Amino acid sequence: MTQPQPVMTADQLNQFIAEVYPQILEQLPGHDVRLVEPGRVVVRMEADERHIRAGGTVSGPTLFALADMGGYACVLSHIGREALAVTTNLNINFMRKADPGPLDADCKILKLGKRLMVFEASICQADQKDIIAHATGTYAIPPK
Amino acid sequence: MTQPQPVMTADQLNQFIAEVYPQILEQLPGHDVRLVEPGRVVVRMEADERHIRAGGTVSGPTLFALADMGGYACVLSHIGREALAVTTNLNINFMRKADPGPLDADCKILKLGKRLMVFEASICQADQKDIIAHATGTYAIPPK
Amino acid sequence: MTQPQPVMTADQLNQFIAEVYPQILEQLPGHDVRLVEPGRVVVRMEADERHIRAGGTVSGPTLFALADMGGYACVLSHIGREALAVTTNLNINFMRKADPGPLDADCKILKLGKRLMVFEASICQADQKDIIAHATGTYAIPPK
Amino acid sequence: MTQPQPVMTADQLNQFIAEVYPQILEQLPGHDVRLVEPGRVVVRMEADERHIRAGGTVSGPTLFALADMGGYACVLSHIGREALAVTTNLNINFMRKADPGPLDADCKILKLGKRLMVFEASICQADQKDIIAHATGTYAIPPK
Repeated sequence: MTQPQPVMTADQLNQFIAEVYPQILEQLPGHDVRLVEPGRVVVRMEADERHIRAGGTVSGPTLFALADMGGYACVLSHIGREALAVTTNLNINFMRKADPGPLDADCKILKLGKRLMVFEASICQADQKDIIAHATGTYAIPPK
Repeated sequence: MTQPQPVMTADQLNQFIAEVYPQILEQLPGHDVRLVEPGRVVVRMEADERHIRAGGTVSGPTLFALADMGGYACVLSHIGREALAVTTNLNINFMRKADPGPLDADCKILKLGKRLMVFEASICQADQKDIIAHATGTYAIPPK
Repeated sequence: MTQPQPVMTADQLNQFIAEVYPQILEQLPGHDVRLVEPGRVVVRMEADERHIRAGGTVSGPTLFALADMGGYACVLSHIGREALAVTTNLNINFMRKADPGPLDADCKILKLGKRLMVFEASICQADQKDIIAHATGTYAIPPK
Repeated sequence: MTQPQPVMTADQLNQFIAEVYPQILEQLPGHDVRLVEPGRVVVRMEADERHIRAGGTVSGPTLFALADMGGYACVLSHIGREALAVTTNLNINFMRKADPGPLDADCKILKLGKRLMVFEASICQADQKDIIAHATGTYAIPPK
């Protein structure tokens, strides 16, 4: 697959997101774009007691928020900071319990068109390989 | 469709959810099960400035959390408080901007089986009819 | 909800679809748009032995094809015959066994925007109310 | 990820599917399981003029059928021929036009539980890397 090329680095993304989403660190504490490469972004968060649901697992809305943020980081890193893209669809499968601690969303761009970006995100406990949740989503990209 | 019959009232649901999810009012302030009838539950929340994203719209994770809570209220109200169901899949389409204020998720049970419950949720501004977001989801029901 | 207004009748749709998709009657025999009203279309097909999978149930791809055709009929009926829309996403839940015979897809437009149409489809045995399969999908509408 | 181990080879799968689904070669001509390895199956079909829709692209229902068959091959190869699993959910994104000719669905098992198997499928033109369609789905596995 001819991979789309990023136009922002991980550092630039972190700085930009902190500016336009100052509330991000409240919602996704420890939010950190750790990797940007052609067609791929890895985003981390630190799940803590606030994100836990009954049964001691990280809540579905928290994992959704992390996947959605990963998709946003995909758009932003590959289109640039003028991107005003919005999520139009997100489908998520929850597969395993998630423990508190660092969680990584490894996100791949499946298609970057003029009007739509489609991505998938695999969420794992940091440095582990069992997939906790898997999401596929679409961002609509407004005309310039 | 032969509608499944509820076994808990809206008041019982509100009391039970407040007990087992004391954090619910922090995540979904004003959370209130407003209606339970055969195969249907309506859940409300009050979106405020904490739920707002860039562009002044209620965030995707907030709408996801409301839809997911609506699905949980469907299972709980129709199976009873021993229900330990967990979300396995949720697909959500975001269609219109959502303003802060009361939001209703009108949830219908599409199938209540022994092992899976499938539901859909339409989220609207309270007392309005334009659908802001529409979700379909599955809860797995553990064996007794 | 302010419902979008149709610009083609059921008869006009049936005639148009038979012209542009002559193969439709092979794939979905008995294909018949039975109702067009603001924001809603009902499409029928006759499932026969060719559509049956192991266990005697109508196959998933057949139900998918009926839901997808219902979405296409939604776009076509509400935009007109110049519509060159294509499916970008379809999510389907299979809930009950489907017997051969007439099947109806009752389709509702959830959003008709300039660039995307979102719809849902409930598939039932004709004249019955138990939902066999439920789909939500998106069609992309190309610029004129 | 600890990958589940297959219990059938590609040859055994092809032979078994031809026995229990004799109609498969009509629906998905050239159907061929080409690879089985831990947690992964690759399934091929030959798209021909019967699978083409307006605009010269392989139809959505054909791509759906291929993805669904790939999921079935995942269950079958990793559980064995007694598997009576049925699709409960399938979400598919259509991203690029598909030309007639050989199409491959590269399928990965995301979770193989006692009651549910979750998989993803990437469909490409054979020997190419651009993803035409991407699906995520769930099969329910009945108790033995």
